[in-house]
Amino acid sequence: MQTRRVKILGTGKYVPRRIVTDEEMDARLGTPPGWVRKTTDVVARHFAGDGETASYMGARAAADALAAAGIRTSDIDCLVCTSGTKEQALPSTASFIQKALGEEMSGVPSFDIDATCLSFLTGLDVMSYMVDAGRYRYVLLVSTEIASVGLNWNEKESAGLFGDGAAAVVIGPSEREDASHIIGALIRTYSKGARLSEIRGGGTRIHPREHNAQTETDFLFHMDGQAIFKMASKLLPGFVEELLAPTGTRMGDFKAVIPHQGSAMAMRLLRKKLGISEEQLIYITPNHGNTIAASIPMGLHEAVRQRKVQRGDRVLLIGTAAGLSLGGMILDY
Amino acid sequence: MQTRRVKILGTGKYVPRRIVTDEEMDARLGTPPGWVRKTTDVVARHFAGDGETASYMGARAAADALAAAGIRTSDIDCLVCTSGTKEQALPSTASFIQKALGEEMSGVPSFDIDATCLSFLTGLDVMSYMVDAGRYRYVLLVSTEIASVGLNWNEKESAGLFGDGAAAVVIGPSEREDASHIIGALIRTYSKGARLSEIRGGGTRIHPREHNAQTETDFLFHMDGQAIFKMASKLLPGFVEELLAPTGTRMGDFKAVIPHQGSAMAMRLLRKKLGISEEQLIYITPNHGNTIAASIPMGLHEAVRQRKVQRGDRVLLIGTAAGLSLGGMILDY
Repeated sequence: MQTRRVKILGTGKYVPRRIVTDEEMDARLGTPPGWVRKTTDVVARHFAGDGETASYMGARAAADALAAAGIRTSDIDCLVCTSGTKEQALPSTASFIQKALGEEMSGVPSFDIDATCLSFLTGLDVMSYMVDAGRYRYVLLVSTEIASVGLNWNEKESAGLFGDGAAAVVIGPSEREDASHIIGALIRTYSKGARLSEIRGGGTRIHPREHNAQTETDFLFHMDGQAIFKMASKLLPGFVEELLAPTGTRMGDFKAVIPHQGSAMAMRLLRKKLGISEEQLIYITPNHGNTIAASIPMGLHEAVRQRKVQRGDRVLLIGTAAGLSLGGMILDY
Repeated sequence: MQTRRVKILGTGKYVPRRIVTDEEMDARLGTPPGWVRKTTDVVARHFAGDGETASYMGARAAADALAAAGIRTSDIDCLVCTSGTKEQALPSTASFIQKALGEEMSGVPSFDIDATCLSFLTGLDVMSYMVDAGRYRYVLLVSTEIASVGLNWNEKESAGLFGDGAAAVVIGPSEREDASHIIGALIRTYSKGARLSEIRGGGTRIHPREHNAQTETDFLFHMDGQAIFKMASKLLPGFVEELLAPTGTRMGDFKAVIPHQGSAMAMRLLRKKLGISEEQLIYITPNHGNTIAASIPMGLHEAVRQRKVQRGDRVLLIGTAAGLSLGGMILDY
């Protein structure tokens, strides 16, 4: 495990104006009243509307995080968009977030890191080394996701899960007397599961020009929830053992466990397989849904805002992602 | 500037089987014979055909790089796809490269870093900190691009420039007695130029379902070459000064300068504005075209293969990218 003298300085969040209730989802999916709530645990999620582009939402969350960190936009040394979706095929979403922040001639290096639902965790892991080495002092990480545009309304189990939104985190060096630091992180990718959740089209393999009535599902999200559950169930215990053992930390030691809010089923799996208590688990699914990579930083933001996590508290970030990847990070907030 | 004890251990390349000559391009673009060659300097580029997906090409280049490095696939600790295009919208291309390498249950962390044409340079910069800190020993960086699927054949100047292909690089720690290391790097993004080269559609802002005869150019590459040239001309001299000055390196000190092969015009700009000699400049445009992010590692591969760069030689990687970004790295190979 590798400790890094890196601190989370501030967090921020933006959710779209439009709230979509579980009743509305039941009506749209053609499911009996109560089905969405019972199956997904999502009571309300937000769907992006006019003007709420990924970069707009990301910039709003970023402004929130910068204010919380007490840092000006001009202090940022690097801007990384850590999302599982892109605003447009090219260039990077980070460029558009920089633009939306009104910093279009700042020169701040801006690029994307994509590990689908684990993009934030992966980006935080990777960029913390640059902060620790002193290359960049303040790094802004932004996860901004519009899931709603790519849902397959015939695949009710997955369509009912997702919500749109953005979250941002500012990191910087922790001072010598500071309790805050990153203790260790672990990422594992098993591409045997690469097709268990995917959007087959939209890239260079199936170009958008091939979109038609016959191929439309190629351009929508597909998820085999049962197969992911099966694969994750097998891999998670060993993964968590590998993450925790070198640090001497046990599950009971965490003040909070902030998971990727993949699905209600995934949350139950985490709790049962890993022995996470109800008090420890930060659970934002009911009023956000699964917001792809924004899910973990949003959970972190809510935990901080609600004072469930305070300075010095030991926290576990953990989740699975399309890929199929598992990721975890231990940090003292 | 920050030195990192990181070494390029091996490089590899894959180009698609099908060669497209400048005569064929003239015929397809409806330009007079000789126009493509004169305007772009590209005599032959490769276009991907059946079975040549981004992950297939990336895996082929990776196998080549691993062999050159004398490392087995199973030795890789992290796999990063550093491309400007994606194989499909979700999950990351790196997962599919891992699969194509036959390592689908390896667990090797696999994710994408996207800074368009500077994805490789950015990925090398970022990941070198993880290698230097000992988090990962061997990192495989793969840039694999299929430009041909997104060309706008009515925009002759840009359509004539591009080629498909992949390049891969394995990095690892340099030993104490080793002359090889990274001396410094600099990335700058000016999103004022974010729309000067772009593919507007394909992401969450313009979903592929909106593809039709009226909108088709939204899903194709658009480039305002003149505006990029103007912006880059202004920014490059100051950028290079900022990159070189702290290291005490002058342009004449480089054995080789390996640029992103953006266009013949961009190459002339580099040579003229920065005082790069013809001997120093690694110029692979005539038989590759602009292969997006694969361009720089392909140039590096060719320079090594042709013995224009040998161990200990000082090298400059440099380029511009959609974003608009400028990037440079000084290393002793």
